[in-house]
Amino acid sequence: MDSIEYEKRTITRGALKYTGKAKQVYTTDDPDILWVHYLDQATALNGKVKETISGKGELNSAISQLLFNYLTGNNIKNHYLHSISKTDELITSLDILPIEVVTRNYASGHFVSKFAATPMQKLTPIVQEFYYKSDALDDPFINDSQILALNYATTDELSKLRDESTIINRHLMDLFRQANIWLIDFKLEFGRTKNGDILLADELSPDNMRLVDIATGNSLDKDVFRKHSGDVTVGYQEVLTRLQQII
Amino acid sequence: MDSIEYEKRTITRGALKYTGKAKQVYTTDDPDILWVHYLDQATALNGKVKETISGKGELNSAISQLLFNYLTGNNIKNHYLHSISKTDELITSLDILPIEVVTRNYASGHFVSKFAATPMQKLTPIVQEFYYKSDALDDPFINDSQILALNYATTDELSKLRDESTIINRHLMDLFRQANIWLIDFKLEFGRTKNGDILLADELSPDNMRLVDIATGNSLDKDVFRKHSGDVTVGYQEVLTRLQQII
Repeated sequence: MDSIEYEKRTITRGALKYTGKAKQVYTTDDPDILWVHYLDQATALNGKVKETISGKGELNSAISQLLFNYLTGNNIKNHYLHSISKTDELITSLDILPIEVVTRNYASGHFVSKFAATPMQKLTPIVQEFYYKSDALDDPFINDSQILALNYATTDELSKLRDESTIINRHLMDLFRQANIWLIDFKLEFGRTKNGDILLADELSPDNMRLVDIATGNSLDKDVFRKHSGDVTVGYQEVLTRLQQII
Repeated sequence: MDSIEYEKRTITRGALKYTGKAKQVYTTDDPDILWVHYLDQATALNGKVKETISGKGELNSAISQLLFNYLTGNNIKNHYLHSISKTDELITSLDILPIEVVTRNYASGHFVSKFAATPMQKLTPIVQEFYYKSDALDDPFINDSQILALNYATTDELSKLRDESTIINRHLMDLFRQANIWLIDFKLEFGRTKNGDILLADELSPDNMRLVDIATGNSLDKDVFRKHSGDVTVGYQEVLTRLQQII
């Protein structure tokens, strides 16, 4: 499909803008709108390990659309606009901030090894980490004063990222708890509109979250792929099915 | 020397409490006072490289005492009490906070490689970094929310560390500039008294600072040892001589 009706006009897909770890982003004939296509691809170790996984694109697209719609319903400004197909969607074109925001409710992964923390230890207050988006530098962990000195964002923007992530965390934790899933940690990205507003961007999927089945303790996220512990799409399908039952 | 007159009484050295990278710390017969002995030792890579350097202990002790006295004169509360000899001193026994505070005025070392920053780039605002003191974990870089979640310090203590380091930086920059030296970056440690006061601790020497001669651009600090670029004591002696001419 190369075009879609959106708000009483036709949006046509243009050139490939860039290929991310698990999606492609295209321009459209509207400079304020981009066309996203989810790929059947999984990566680990910041892209060093890559694999094709049939059906993963559709699952990520479906989960992401569902979560963006849920957050929109809770007044969280975000870039999601419209579903085109099972793997494609329209989003607002943003000037993406070069800062990834990781929020942690429980100790897991890198946090455990770095600080010899107890796995699944409840983190109070929640932990928020900034990473500088740079493949060349391997997305280094960065603090506020480093961000300000290097001009990667302003003080106001950092406050906004922190506050928005805290609110989004509360909404997502509530939702996943209803689905009998622990939200362990997750990564968000944000971007600036032409007017300087900060909107939630990127995708919201088990590629960027740690999700654990409350009943069984099983991972329902990309850790299954990272650890080669099974078929990653089984967990993703479970997440989607449970969310569809609630929302 | 095993004892010293201090405030109209005799303080006697007790058992070795611990050996640091370049000094030994002993108990005394007063539980609130410790006895520090500076060693002729240099280390790099968090202690993995170690070497004996004749005269280094005396130089570090002399520079540290001079800088603590200067800061005391500027109302900075610290643990330094009294000089015993050219290598030994009395300090207040503190409950050392497990957080190292690094302040950076110019980009250098690790900061340059981590962020591909321009060497000697002026950092505005100044950069402040916290590191969790743990040899086993290799002193990991840590942010405020991680420190709070792991109970390593309180919000009030972090504010205090940040504010005190900022003020100390201003005083030290002023002093070194008078000595025709750039203060590039430095590491501080702090500890709690029995009353809960936070005092500046550790040593203040070119082992923990990057110092560059404004006239020549030469390193006058431990980088000379890290990079095997010459006799480290030549730079330390130059720092001491210039500071003695000013203070």
